[in-house]
This record gives sequence, C-alpha cells and structure tokens, in this order.
Amino acid sequence: MDMLWSGWGDPARAQPLPDTVTGLLRDLLGVKPRDAEPVPLEDIPVPPAPLDAVAHQALVIAVGGAEHVRTDAETRIRHTRGKSTPDLLRMRDGDITDLPAAVVLPARHDEVLAVLRTCAEHGLTLVPFGGGTSVVGGLAPGPRGPFVALDLRRMDRLLALDPVSRTATLQPGLRTPQAEALLAEHGFTLGHFPQSYEWATIGGCAATRSSGQASAGYGRFDEMVLGLTLATPEGTLETGGRAPRSAAGPDLRQLILGSEGAFGVITSVTVRIRPVPQIRRYEGWRFASFEEGAAALRRLAQDGPRPTVLRLSDETETLIGLAQPEAIGSSSAPRTDGCTAVVGFEGTVEDTAYQRERAAAVLSARGGTPLGEEPGQRWVHGRYSAPYLRDSLLDAGAFAETLETATFWSRVPALYAAVREALTGALTDAGTPPLVMCHISHVYENGASLYFTVVSAQGDDPVAHWTRAKHAAGDAILAAGGTISHHHGVGTDHRDWYVREAGALGVDALRAVKRRLDPAGLLNPGVLLPVD
Amino acid sequence: MDMLWSGWGDPARAQPLPDTVTGLLRDLLGVKPRDAEPVPLEDIPVPPAPLDAVAHQALVIAVGGAEHVRTDAETRIRHTRGKSTPDLLRMRDGDITDLPAAVVLPARHDEVLAVLRTCAEHGLTLVPFGGGTSVVGGLAPGPRGPFVALDLRRMDRLLALDPVSRTATLQPGLRTPQAEALLAEHGFTLGHFPQSYEWATIGGCAATRSSGQASAGYGRFDEMVLGLTLATPEGTLETGGRAPRSAAGPDLRQLILGSEGAFGVITSVTVRIRPVPQIRRYEGWRFASFEEGAAALRRLAQDGPRPTVLRLSDETETLIGLAQPEAIGSSSAPRTDGCTAVVGFEGTVEDTAYQRERAAAVLSARGGTPLGEEPGQRWVHGRYSAPYLRDSLLDAGAFAETLETATFWSRVPALYAAVREALTGALTDAGTPPLVMCHISHVYENGASLYFTVVSAQGDDPVAHWTRAKHAAGDAILAAGGTISHHHGVGTDHRDWYVREAGALGVDALRAVKRRLDPAGLLNPGVLLPVD
Repeated sequence: MDMLWSGWGDPARAQPLPDTVTGLLRDLLGVKPRDAEPVPLEDIPVPPAPLDAVAHQALVIAVGGAEHVRTDAETRIRHTRGKSTPDLLRMRDGDITDLPAAVVLPARHDEVLAVLRTCAEHGLTLVPFGGGTSVVGGLAPGPRGPFVALDLRRMDRLLALDPVSRTATLQPGLRTPQAEALLAEHGFTLGHFPQSYEWATIGGCAATRSSGQASAGYGRFDEMVLGLTLATPEGTLETGGRAPRSAAGPDLRQLILGSEGAFGVITSVTVRIRPVPQIRRYEGWRFASFEEGAAALRRLAQDGPRPTVLRLSDETETLIGLAQPEAIGSSSAPRTDGCTAVVGFEGTVEDTAYQRERAAAVLSARGGTPLGEEPGQRWVHGRYSAPYLRDSLLDAGAFAETLETATFWSRVPALYAAVREALTGALTDAGTPPLVMCHISHVYENGASLYFTVVSAQGDDPVAHWTRAKHAAGDAILAAGGTISHHHGVGTDHRDWYVREAGALGVDALRAVKRRLDPAGLLNPGVLLPVD
Repeated sequence: MDMLWSGWGDPARAQPLPDTVTGLLRDLLGVKPRDAEPVPLEDIPVPPAPLDAVAHQALVIAVGGAEHVRTDAETRIRHTRGKSTPDLLRMRDGDITDLPAAVVLPARHDEVLAVLRTCAEHGLTLVPFGGGTSVVGGLAPGPRGPFVALDLRRMDRLLALDPVSRTATLQPGLRTPQAEALLAEHGFTLGHFPQSYEWATIGGCAATRSSGQASAGYGRFDEMVLGLTLATPEGTLETGGRAPRSAAGPDLRQLILGSEGAFGVITSVTVRIRPVPQIRRYEGWRFASFEEGAAALRRLAQDGPRPTVLRLSDETETLIGLAQPEAIGSSSAPRTDGCTAVVGFEGTVEDTAYQRERAAAVLSARGGTPLGEEPGQRWVHGRYSAPYLRDSLLDAGAFAETLETATFWSRVPALYAAVREALTGALTDAGTPPLVMCHISHVYENGASLYFTVVSAQGDDPVAHWTRAKHAAGDAILAAGGTISHHHGVGTDHRDWYVREAGALGVDALRAVKRRLDPAGLLNPGVLLPVD
C-alpha cells in the first residue's frame, strides 16, 4: 500500500477530531477552520518528466525493465518530499517544486550500482527513497537539476539469518513490520519500533541513525548494526560483517550510519536480533513533576534495572494526553496533575518479574506512584497514531509539528527550558501562541533525549512561522549544549545547525569522504552536507 | 617511573622462571639457553639527533622550554618501538633503527598544535607516544626521514567530572591507574582494565580502540567515549560532547577512535564513568571442553545475566596455567582436565548476589562445575603479570608472543582451529614447534574474541620465524571470517591485512580523511594506512 500522498499513512485510518477537541483548539489557541481544502492529487499540473529518452532508456536497462522506471504524475508526486509538517502543507497546496524526474526501482545491489553509473553519465542526481518518512527534508535535494528518486521497495528480502550468532542480513527496502514478520518466523525480533515503524524501512533506519521507542532495552538502530553494504558511484563498500566489534581501525559502520544517502545507497544491513520476548508488560507511573520523574528515569538508566521502554511526559503533555491521541477529549483521557511515565519490560517471565519488582522499588523511592497497566496498554495501542492525529489537526486548521534533541543529564533542565522558551517566543511573536509539550523519549546512562510537540493556530503563513520557530529552537539547542537531532537526522532542515555542531574540520572530513565515494556529487546534494 | 627499555614494566618486578619451568621448556619445546646477553642500554651507539638547531629551537618554543625537548640517547632509546616480542628482541640486540630524532613533551592542547605546525614547517614526521605499549608496530613509522616522538605524559589531568551525568573529561597522557585514582576520589571508576593497564594511557586506549578485561560489564573503551578533542595539522576537531548519542550525521567519535595517531593527536577524552562497585567477586568454573565452555559463555552473553568479567581458557592454556603465570610449576597450578573459566561480578551487594546465583544456574545447566573463588582471586592477582613472564621466557631462550581476533559465534570454532593450525604449521616448519594456547577474552551477544599465546624455542632467527607465522595467522583469520584485531589495533604489523579487511574503497575513504586533516602526511606514516 502507498502512504497518503499529502499526509500520513493509510487513508482508511484517518480520524476526524472530536468536536470537543475542535472547540478546545478554537478557545485555547485561536485555531480557525481552514478556508481552502487540500488540492486533489489529480488536479496538480505535473510537467513532463525532464528526462531525455536516452537517459530514460539507460535507466530501464539498469533495472531490467520499463516497469521499474516510473515517470507518471502520481508516482512522482508520491515521491515528492517527506513527512514534515511543512512538507505536508506544501503538498496540500499542490506545491511540487521538489518533484523527481523519475522513480527508479532496482531489485539488486548490482542494479543500484548500474543506476548510479547511469546517473553519473547523464548528469542526474539521485535521492534514495525508503519509507519516505523523513521529517527533516531528507528527500528534497538541492538545486542541481533533475533528480531520480531511487525507491528501494523491491529490495525487501531477508538474505541470511544466523540463529547461533543471532544476526540477520536484511535488504534495505524491507519495511520494519515486514522485517519483524520475517524474523518472527524464526523466533526472533529486531526490537526497533520508531514512531514511523509502520512505514519506515531498514535502509532508512540505518541511513538516519534511527532510534526506536524500545531503545532503552534494544538499543538504537546504530547499535544493532553489525555490517553494511554500500553502493557508491565509485563501487561497493562493505564494512563490518566479520565481528561484533573490532580494533581494526576506525569503525566504518559508524561512518555509513547517519550518512543519509550522501555517501551511497545502503543495499544490505546485518543486524543483531533477539528472541521474541515471552512477555511484554507496560505500565504507567505518575510523578509530581517532570523534574522528579526525570530524576527517577535517570536512576533506572544509570543503576538499573533498565526497562525496555522508558518515557516520561511533561506536565503539559500529560495533561493534553497527546501520547494517547485517540483518547483526547474522551472520558478515558488522563487528567492527573503531574507527569505520566510509561515503563515497559520485555523478556522472559522470570527476568521481567524480577526487574519489574526492582524497578518499582526504585521508582517508588523516587516519588513515583504506580498507575497499573492501563496507561501502558493505552500507550502501546496509540504508539504509532500521532502522525494521523497531526493530519486531523491540519484539517482542522491547527498547526502541529515535532522536534527533538538530546544532551547529558545535567544539561537536561536547561535544554528543556531553552527550547520551550524559543518555540513559545517565536510562535507567540508570529501571532500564533503555541502549546508546547515534551517527553523524554530515550534514556542513556549519561543523558536523555527530549521530544517536543508544538500545536498552534496555522495563522496566515504557517510554514514561514514554523521555519522561524524551528530556527530559534535550533539555536537554543546548540546554545544549551544539545545535539541538533537525536533521532530524526539532519536532512536539509538541520544542515546549517549540523555544520555548527560538527565544526568546520569535522564537516570537511565528511566532505572528503563524500568526494572520494561520490566525486560528481550525485547523491542527495545538500542533504547532510552543504553542496560544495 | 619509566618502563624497562628492552622489556616490560617495572624492572624490580621481574621474576626468573622456576627451574621446573625451564626444564619443561627444554624437554617439551627444545628451548636452549640464549648464548648472548641483551646489549646494555649504555652500550648502544646512538648517533646524534638528526635535528637541525633551527627545528630544535622551534620545538622548544612550541612546548615552552628546552627541558621538554629531549635528544639524549637514553630518552630516545626509551621511545623506540613498542612492546611486541619482535620489538623486544630487536631492542635486546641493540637494534635502534626506529630511533626518534627527539622526544617532545607538550603540556597543553595548544602546545600540541604548535608542535604539529613546527613539524610541518621542518619536514619532521611525528609519532604520538602514550604508554608505549603497542604490540603491533604502532610506534614505528614508515621510512620518511627523522621523526619526533610526542610523549603525552605531561597531559595527565582530570579536566572535568559531572557526577549527575556520570561523565569525566581526561587528558590523554593519564595512565589508566592514575585515571582510576583521580576518579576514585569522587567515588567513580572507568572500569577499563586492559592487560597493559599499569602502563597504558587514556589517549592510547582511545586511539587504538582498546578493550579491557572487564569489557563484558563495562564495555570496550570505544563504547565509553562520549567526546574527543583531536589536534591535527589543520587545526582542532572536537566531536561528541553534546549528548551520549545523536542522529546528527555519522558518528565522528568512531572515526577518531581507532585512528591510531594517523589523523591527529587526541588531547582530551570525555568518558562514561560508573560508581566504584560495592563488591567484586571472581570465581572459577570448569568445563569439559572449550566447545562446551564457549557455549555456556555464549548463553550468558546472549541471555544474561551478563557478568562483568567472562573469559575461558582452552584445554592447553588451562593445563599450562598461563593465565596465572606466577603459579606455573608450583603446586597451586590448576591441573584439571578440561577448561577453566573466570566469571566475575561487580556491583551492588544485592545485584551481584542475584546475578551470581542466576549465572551459576545457567553455567551449571551447560555443564559447568564451580571451582570457587580461589581461581578467580588467582586470576585477579596475576592479571597484569603475563608480560613479565614473557621477559622471563625470552631470558630463558624461549619465544613467546600473543595475537588476537574476533568473530561471530557461529564462526568461532573454525576460526579457532584455523589460527591454531596456521601458527603450529608455520613454526613447526621453522623447526620450532610451538605450544599454542587460547582463551576467549571478550564476549558479545553476537560473537567473541580469541586471544592466542604462542610459546616455542627461539631458534636461529625468532623474528623471521614469527613474522612468517604471524602472516600465516593473519591470512587464516581473514579466510575464516575474523577481524585482524579485536583489541591490539592495526599499527604497521596488521596494516596489509587491515587493507584487505576494510577493502579498497573503505581504506580510500580513510585516506581521504587523512589527507584533509594531515595533508603533508606528518602523522604516523605507515601506521594504520599505507603511505600514499
């Protein structure tokens, strides 16, 4: 199934907002109904593909069939941009300035190499396209003329599984649920559940250093990766695949992870797998304040026992219950004061029981009150629903977007305050004072990530207003010692802040790598790194 | 204190072999007493430093004092090569072909930058020198004319400690015991205990992706590092330091870790720290075979509970008791059949008790027999002694050396057999049939490292014989799907195998980074990467 071209996910799962919520948005944030409906896909005037017949035919040869090189309007529109709110607003307005010339669907590593050669020969740039879920402009290349979207969906196989070593080799176009299903046949799980889980692909998770909602237990995607194959314009780079860890030079896997398609196209990923847990148990906990809850989470992250899932909403997010979007405005919405955490354990019956008991002791000692399994179940049920809610909010004339960062524990309070202040200030200045919510989404021994959700009225120019607010938030993040992204990646939206974060020499080192692997600059120009 | 120039460690701790061992070496391996004593340091004819007065003076200015630029014979000899057995044999013979022109001792990051500029101006190459413990030729640069050894011992401070985030920023010249002492004042430990612990430095551990004996619990050094500062000929590169993990681009920390001085000089390292454990408890376990023991270790590594220390000697190593060198030939040496493992837990009293109990159940179910704390205590007591034993073996006319690798669990048996066969075959062909011992030194969910120790007679040309055996082992490692080094690093000795392991394009990507950071190729030429 294809994702909704101008929004998120399966159109059949769209849910209009309850009237109570619409009323709240109007009264609290001044949200007014949109006066224009989104442009229907079929009404968008799509120019002919800027692809000459020779280049087109060469691409057909590269992927072994005309049906794998698509230039029809619908396919090109469906590969335009990602899923940030500005992306969606532009699509709803029929703005197709980032339209690919063609969508090419290779089935094998050597076909990817052939497409790269063809692009080099014909002066085409290339954007790898997995789930198309980027929220940081990762699919909108710089102004370099016509580009090809390389859709990897045909590369969707489990190539190898080693039950003794607990490793699996996956193709990049596998969506994460497909990967889980294939691994489950052998009794294993990857344990990677980003919010984009239902649409994300393995290659995309690797290219963007994805982090899932169970990262406390299963680790980040970059921690799961044991080996990678990269197709570059200069040939194949294989890395890892010999040992879990090595002292043989810098870890090249960690140079490819997070390269966001700028160095090459990831064509296979060897990952760590684990047995499907016997049980999963998620529970809610209440804390009097975000500060108190964060201190309790820190204790578990540093001294254990480490839950599989560990997240904490701040007071505003707890109140709004955005973590359980389908419950908003209903009688089941949490209406507690304070902050709600979700604490989940997965594993064997015995381990989970022991760890739950000990974690409960730690959380209670730190001021936590157990809320039982119901809030945990509600979170599980709604964990992939927030992007659907965003579509409903946009339909209702509201603006909704997220951004995230991470830092060391001692800096968390100041980072939290600085980002809230930046977002609130910028959007209030724009005449659309926002509601800013936050949760700790991932924890480490040494720090945590902060995930912010902003809801406001759209105002007269929501993309321009948000751009200013986002820039203010980025500046605040860097000033407070945070990273510009903990799991969304860099794309084009974070690039200028990334350059400041990585420093001139760090960026130059990466540019040197890019020039060696992609001397003509075909790959994702302007994504991750500035165009030379 | 300086290390023994032609051997290991503190000369006062040298221990001659018991007569029983000397007899065994003679009877089993044909070891004959050496007919030549090592050349005394003061008898080595050292040529004048090939450093003109202008360059010398510029270096003095760079480090703020003539006493920090040493050109005396003894200091230069003490900075010649590392501590591989061929290194020691060459030093014992008075071979100083790898002598530095000068030893320069900077005290600050900006002095390191000044030294790099001075070297660039005067055509000197530079070898960063930490503990001087490389066993892979990491301190012997290629044939590029005179070089400076940059000894970092004056950079030995704890720069910052954040008890909330549990991070510490350390200077590179701190020896690991000094670092532990400074952290212990605040109740923390780094938990990094390589065999070279008593002499290794923080900078060296970072530059070589060191892994300690407690890596099962504390992780590898590269997993502990949260931030790095690198002084390069092109300026300063700072990376990390904002968050434990980030999705903002490739992980540049992992590009510096393992760069072995080829990209720059590491001038500060921010690491994860943990509370000093309440208790440490190490125990011995016996298994009927290496295979059975390895399966039991795999179970703990994959399903837990994960001990802090987990290692398993094969039948030969168990028999010889090399893991407890001081016990060799004494009545306390283990004389069991089968294989001995050391299983150690560190942490709180409560956690350790629970984990020990559960680990014991797992090990017993997999055929293990508990041997109590005595073998664990013996291992702790002797854990840093093996290099002293090597000196005694060399004195007695024996040859002793180690090498190590790692792979995924399913390949461990074949890798083990292949390396043993390669070493045994090559040294037997040379007329010095060896004793080859092995232990699993580090475990992961997905694989393990194998650490081999070889003892034989020296024969007529031990360096040449070993070089052939080591090459055969390297070829066998790559053919069996292992990595050329799990924790010793690449240096010059492993470089050709590393190039095969990383692949042409991977190596080229690293060369591109080096050219950007070190365009004149001043830094450690021939270490890690081939000279351009």
